[in-house]
Amino acid sequence: MFGNGAKQVIKKIDHIGIAVKDLKNTLNMYKRVYGLEAIKIETHEDIKIKIAFIPIGEVLIELLEATEPGAGRIGHFLEEKGEGLHHIALRVESINRAMEKLKQINIPLRDKEPRDGGDGSKIAFIEPESTQNVLTELVERKREVTGN
Amino acid sequence: MFGNGAKQVIKKIDHIGIAVKDLKNTLNMYKRVYGLEAIKIETHEDIKIKIAFIPIGEVLIELLEATEPGAGRIGHFLEEKGEGLHHIALRVESINRAMEKLKQINIPLRDKEPRDGGDGSKIAFIEPESTQNVLTELVERKREVTGN
Repeated sequence: MFGNGAKQVIKKIDHIGIAVKDLKNTLNMYKRVYGLEAIKIETHEDIKIKIAFIPIGEVLIELLEATEPGAGRIGHFLEEKGEGLHHIALRVESINRAMEKLKQINIPLRDKEPRDGGDGSKIAFIEPESTQNVLTELVERKREVTGN
Repeated sequence: MFGNGAKQVIKKIDHIGIAVKDLKNTLNMYKRVYGLEAIKIETHEDIKIKIAFIPIGEVLIELLEATEPGAGRIGHFLEEKGEGLHHIALRVESINRAMEKLKQINIPLRDKEPRDGGDGSKIAFIEPESTQNVLTELVERKREVTGN
């Protein structure tokens, strides 16, 4: 749907979300094994997650730790499935236009309205039943985080 | 380890691998929902997989279908876990140097030697026990597939 017409609406992979048990150990692994380091670490107590952002090219790796065992979506995910790949996020130009179009073609959204993501972004999740069980986030950003 | 010194050895996310039950239906979804299309579809009978490559920015989405139900790594994954995110691949300049360094720091590799990937690439998988259960592939390529 986004591609109908002249321009591509999905700009790039914005980030890849990975659920981890221990953020500190994971950051040590990324440094030791890949030589990669986080540019930012944020705690969102309201949704019980701590996030580290590691840029690789134009994409961010988003490492997600629960602030309390079993709490919030990431805590639940870790208890049910353990550590691993959690979601991918697609960068769009306009989150409102993207969500409107998804509603038109009956793709179910987890978020009925755009909500605030990190760094002034606006985000919404698509229910994974429409996307081969790949939990997918749409992200609109005012500025690049990676520098690319 | 890769980052010790002047240059970054991990260049970018090369691709994101997604295991799917029905490649044709999935390609229809990517077209209808995101306006994205495959640039290449390959069948590898020796390892029982059919792969479609969809470029998004500098990254490829690699959709993986088993050529027979339950056959090969993807068939097994689908039977055990169902559809969903399967692996990520990191682009390196030299697969031999990357593997050598991983061996030096005792990171276990699933492939003891580089093997042929698609489009003249050389690949090797890291065992996910070292990487928070994220199955990770290293890829060296002679040329870009995405055009970016």
